[in-house]
Amino acid sequence: MRGEGRGRGGEPVGPGLLHGADRPVNFAKLHGAGNDFLLFDGGANPALADELPPLVPGLCHRRFGIGADGVLLVLPTGVAAARVRYWNSDGSEAAFCANGTRCAASFIAARWGWREMVLETGYAAIPAAVDGGQVELRLPAPGEVRPWRELAVAGTVVRGRYLVVGVPHLIVRVEWPDFWRRELAPLAPALRRHPDLRAGGANVSVLQVEDERTLGVRSWERGVEGETLSCGSGDVAAALVAAAEGWVVPPVAVRTASKRVLTVAPEGPPLASPLRLSGPAEWVAEGRVSSDLAAAFRLD
Amino acid sequence: MRGEGRGRGGEPVGPGLLHGADRPVNFAKLHGAGNDFLLFDGGANPALADELPPLVPGLCHRRFGIGADGVLLVLPTGVAAARVRYWNSDGSEAAFCANGTRCAASFIAARWGWREMVLETGYAAIPAAVDGGQVELRLPAPGEVRPWRELAVAGTVVRGRYLVVGVPHLIVRVEWPDFWRRELAPLAPALRRHPDLRAGGANVSVLQVEDERTLGVRSWERGVEGETLSCGSGDVAAALVAAAEGWVVPPVAVRTASKRVLTVAPEGPPLASPLRLSGPAEWVAEGRVSSDLAAAFRLD
Repeated sequence: MRGEGRGRGGEPVGPGLLHGADRPVNFAKLHGAGNDFLLFDGGANPALADELPPLVPGLCHRRFGIGADGVLLVLPTGVAAARVRYWNSDGSEAAFCANGTRCAASFIAARWGWREMVLETGYAAIPAAVDGGQVELRLPAPGEVRPWRELAVAGTVVRGRYLVVGVPHLIVRVEWPDFWRRELAPLAPALRRHPDLRAGGANVSVLQVEDERTLGVRSWERGVEGETLSCGSGDVAAALVAAAEGWVVPPVAVRTASKRVLTVAPEGPPLASPLRLSGPAEWVAEGRVSSDLAAAFRLD
Repeated sequence: MRGEGRGRGGEPVGPGLLHGADRPVNFAKLHGAGNDFLLFDGGANPALADELPPLVPGLCHRRFGIGADGVLLVLPTGVAAARVRYWNSDGSEAAFCANGTRCAASFIAARWGWREMVLETGYAAIPAAVDGGQVELRLPAPGEVRPWRELAVAGTVVRGRYLVVGVPHLIVRVEWPDFWRRELAPLAPALRRHPDLRAGGANVSVLQVEDERTLGVRSWERGVEGETLSCGSGDVAAALVAAAEGWVVPPVAVRTASKRVLTVAPEGPPLASPLRLSGPAEWVAEGRVSSDLAAAFRLD
């Protein structure tokens, strides 16, 4: 049968959740700079908005499931316009994920044939343009930009700047000879929940200036409570802070822990202007979710 | 287009590696007690035997790829007979993987319609029977069964027994009130490479007797160099040692860290007889690998 309408043991897969015969390929896995996502097409099945959320932890589980940092659902809302919903791997819904939104644009381009579109996220309505494997987003000016401050942590004092790019970030400049190898713990977890920050703390990104147009950035993410290979909005926040200080000249190339490069181009004064974020959205696989997986996680 | 013959950006996917139009669904992801694998059908494309090995690290990468502990390729060799090749996630080929072989049997049942078959692995020719989501393997008697010995490690002395079930294992009985939560490091890594073992060391499994028919088993695996949710051959080794000592009465139910249960049934004296191993093989997803992924890892 070679995968046509069959599940485990060769039995036909019945209709139902994630398995309608009209949707032979019902998920795609993509990653944006090593930040990986499962994408679902709500245009093909609007009921996914209700059916998907309880399955997110199972889908994202890296041993029992397909494995991902998060899940995105796209629903067309008009001409070249779509709503994008995002869930963290723990099942909680979040307002925004920059790398995930880039992957959503690539997914929409492949599914619906749009090259330019507006994506309505919980953060803002974000114009996106897809050019082959590169996706550019136009993001609003950052919000809640606060002055530099000194934060006591782990027996030392760290100078950091807090700003919001959809979600809150704390940016710290470092000069470490072993920048890409040094353990971010214990510095990052203590900063991430530092009592001087707002309730909920912040994602923490450390940046290193590589040359006048290039930063290296590593991020410790809330929710994940660990380092990821890239935090898109943290990369944006780091680039804007560095450009505002004159450490780099825009457009800023941000090298991530994945070694993929994102480009951040503010359209005016870095901390007060909209900006363009561009970078790769790479396709990993497309497929159908097994009914075994859905059943296992509904029962757990 | 909804996933028919298209890749990223909506461009058609050309023929070629992992992408022939005759193979719309070219991988499956399954797990056996939380030990997860990507499976490929060499009957549909014999060239995979050459094309697949260099792609294994990329396919198994949990951020850039689909993510798995290993990759299996099945190739039909006769009537209800198939060769099963297994690669660890680092790309190295291994003689045997018990959970992977159970998943391979389930995959073959779905693809080729066989319910009973003989699987030729690097360890032995292994009869397998598929009954819905359960797969039973008939394994040879363990080899190289050595006496109990005391191993000095981490400031203490541990009593362990070494035996080979396709790959080498060291079995240790423990009585820990926090059996499922205790960190296996530093005990397990030091045992795994203990100088009193043969060169190459062994997988280390700790067992706890739960009742007269049930063990809890946790395993620290070579190659992974960490704990997995289940090591099938380690679960077999632990069950045979415990049955030989009279700590449990066969058939032995082994609870794994995944909470899935494997059953080990020796056909005679536990350390000198063939045995049956049965347990679940659960389907996660089926799909097509993207040409992006193959290209990224061929270039790296």
